[in-house]
Amino acid sequence: MTGKLYGLGLGPGDPDLITLKAHKILQRVPVIAWPAPDTGPSFARAIAAPHLPGGQMEIPIVVPMRTDRFPARDVYDKASVEIAAHLDVGRDVAVLCEGDPFFYGSFMYVFERLAAKYPTEVVPGVSSMMAAASAAGRPLAARNDVLTVLPGPLGNEELTKRINASDALAIIKIGRHFNRLRALIGKMNLLPHAFYVERVSLEAERLMPLAEVAEDTAPYFSMILIYKGGEDWIQTLPGSKA
Amino acid sequence: MTGKLYGLGLGPGDPDLITLKAHKILQRVPVIAWPAPDTGPSFARAIAAPHLPGGQMEIPIVVPMRTDRFPARDVYDKASVEIAAHLDVGRDVAVLCEGDPFFYGSFMYVFERLAAKYPTEVVPGVSSMMAAASAAGRPLAARNDVLTVLPGPLGNEELTKRINASDALAIIKIGRHFNRLRALIGKMNLLPHAFYVERVSLEAERLMPLAEVAEDTAPYFSMILIYKGGEDWIQTLPGSKA
Repeated sequence: MTGKLYGLGLGPGDPDLITLKAHKILQRVPVIAWPAPDTGPSFARAIAAPHLPGGQMEIPIVVPMRTDRFPARDVYDKASVEIAAHLDVGRDVAVLCEGDPFFYGSFMYVFERLAAKYPTEVVPGVSSMMAAASAAGRPLAARNDVLTVLPGPLGNEELTKRINASDALAIIKIGRHFNRLRALIGKMNLLPHAFYVERVSLEAERLMPLAEVAEDTAPYFSMILIYKGGEDWIQTLPGSKA
Repeated sequence: MTGKLYGLGLGPGDPDLITLKAHKILQRVPVIAWPAPDTGPSFARAIAAPHLPGGQMEIPIVVPMRTDRFPARDVYDKASVEIAAHLDVGRDVAVLCEGDPFFYGSFMYVFERLAAKYPTEVVPGVSSMMAAASAAGRPLAARNDVLTVLPGPLGNEELTKRINASDALAIIKIGRHFNRLRALIGKMNLLPHAFYVERVSLEAERLMPLAEVAEDTAPYFSMILIYKGGEDWIQTLPGSKA
């Protein structure tokens, strides 16, 4: 009997925003694997920490953050060999995923290597996009809105075209692209509709209109929400940590 | 002291896919409100049922399904007055929301009436879109993909334009539009990339390539996922109920 591979969505950061299902799996799996940057701790591991009984085996998947050759194929090759060794002897392995595993998640790089060979289950999680809208008191999308999710690294021409074409947008992966994105949104006269959310659901959560952000850069875990319309009813909330 | 209003995301249907936070709130709020169609039971109430301690007061929000004048303003006006009466005397009220409250959710109709007057917190939930991708073993979006969420009632011309313009799409609210949508996707030669998910995470969950659906209609709680590419690694899973 081989073990089962789980892609385990853990939600946006607040340990209380994991699902009962993910909590139960964390309580019983003998092996966890988790991504970490080469420069600091693992966010996914931190979300899971309060839910771990202790004593489990752990497989860090250390992904170099400064490489342009993404994904780091050899890192995922090596991690998948390690994970498979546990599955082969009947141990279940949970790969910890911040947010939702299949919403721009790195779990797909493990999934594509192992899901054909081992029983696999992906457990969805609350994505930071949903959490950001909730914390801010702004809809992601409603009625027959078209919602577009845009990665910040896209070029200005493509971003402009797509921002013009949608009523509701979430711009993710903004990090070092922040200043360029803010300038672009300003040039499009959409600053009154744009909201900035940083480290949603964590103690360090920050929420404010995009126009009020003082900094010129943003952390990796931040996002810009644009909702055209809604001025008559959007009530900016004090945030999930207030 | 007024009570607090919660918009409580309950996830896609499996009661184990609610968050610990939503579970705790359900355990202690004296009043719950929940949407229901005029023709059957409340899906949100059913997701919450295993988590309710019993004895709470309940406010049904019965929304006529056959009206074209959406939202049903008088229904939400009346429900908001009932909810406010509890908040005024210091009782917390949780409005139950299937999926995520601000992802095409009806909670916004309560929110726009009450959030300026009462302390309000929106608790995000796992959306059916994330759950559908997880159950199917298909990415929603990865790397620098643009993800577009399209409501099925949109017209063919707009749908065609937007489906052409995105690598990753989720088409929601398909219901009675199912046959038209399938024909459109077929005409665009995208059937090999299109997957159908019905009642995700429930016992009645059904998953299959769109091309294999025998019926000409779909239930309200169904969705079509399109992901162009990924043939080299997508592994269709047996579903979350397998």
